[in-house]
Amino acid sequence: MRVLGIDPGLRNLGWGVIEVQGSRLSHIANGVCHSVGDDLGARLLSLYEQLSDVVHRHDPQAAAVEQTFVNKDGAGTLKLGQARGIALLVPAQYGLTVGEYSPNRVKKTVVGVGHAAKEQVAHMVKVQLPGVVLAGPDAADALAVAICHAHYGRALAGGLA
Amino acid sequence: MRVLGIDPGLRNLGWGVIEVQGSRLSHIANGVCHSVGDDLGARLLSLYEQLSDVVHRHDPQAAAVEQTFVNKDGAGTLKLGQARGIALLVPAQYGLTVGEYSPNRVKKTVVGVGHAAKEQVAHMVKVQLPGVVLAGPDAADALAVAICHAHYGRALAGGLA
Repeated sequence: MRVLGIDPGLRNLGWGVIEVQGSRLSHIANGVCHSVGDDLGARLLSLYEQLSDVVHRHDPQAAAVEQTFVNKDGAGTLKLGQARGIALLVPAQYGLTVGEYSPNRVKKTVVGVGHAAKEQVAHMVKVQLPGVVLAGPDAADALAVAICHAHYGRALAGGLA
Repeated sequence: MRVLGIDPGLRNLGWGVIEVQGSRLSHIANGVCHSVGDDLGARLLSLYEQLSDVVHRHDPQAAAVEQTFVNKDGAGTLKLGQARGIALLVPAQYGLTVGEYSPNRVKKTVVGVGHAAKEQVAHMVKVQLPGVVLAGPDAADALAVAICHAHYGRALAGGLA
């Protein structure tokens, strides 16, 4: 089964697709959608179109999004929320239920500790998906979310593939 | 010209459409989209589908959304941001530029003072759109945003219609 992971952001939205067969994971594709446009509506539309294209191209059967760390920067949280709305809408429109995992849960699953640095996450993504070429840190985080979902999905379903 | 105003919210998203001919405003329709679904993705999809239906049914040539008041409630801001992402995406997808106005600007335009109560806004919307039957407070706020956009659009363009 194919799992799409998404790391939402208004400027850069990371995505990664993996194939899960029993306990075997393999890399399918990863990338970063960059929003373009003069106003917020146009930028959100550009993310929507790029992410829709990813979903149609790679045909995932499951999706997961990183839960957002809410901090005191209200304006930043609002921006992220708007991008997150798109990240949740697109898989739902494709008929997928979207799993949500906290950053700590993702790190714990992929690296083994909840407070791992970004570089450690990228390193362990490379270890678990041999041959992967990462499009950037946001794409690495998205693949980590997909790996996390594969682990939890397997635990829940007793084997995903 | 037809103007769509939107008051975004994850649970209830208010909308209102008015017709602007020179300085004459008239009411076309208003309502509230209620999100339904078991998870966040499904709820956002339900808002997306209802709002898309409104846009296709009423064919506006302009749209405006109330700017969000960002407070210290991070979780609330994130939820609102997600709904706001949908409120901005749908008109953009229809080729519309989306105006944004602060709640104070909307109140000042519609009521005359920036700190008007919700009931005053609803009252002045009824005065300015004779015969309107309001679907609720969120719909009244959405019509107020549309009225605000009509005023500013006229000021900018030297006459909208």
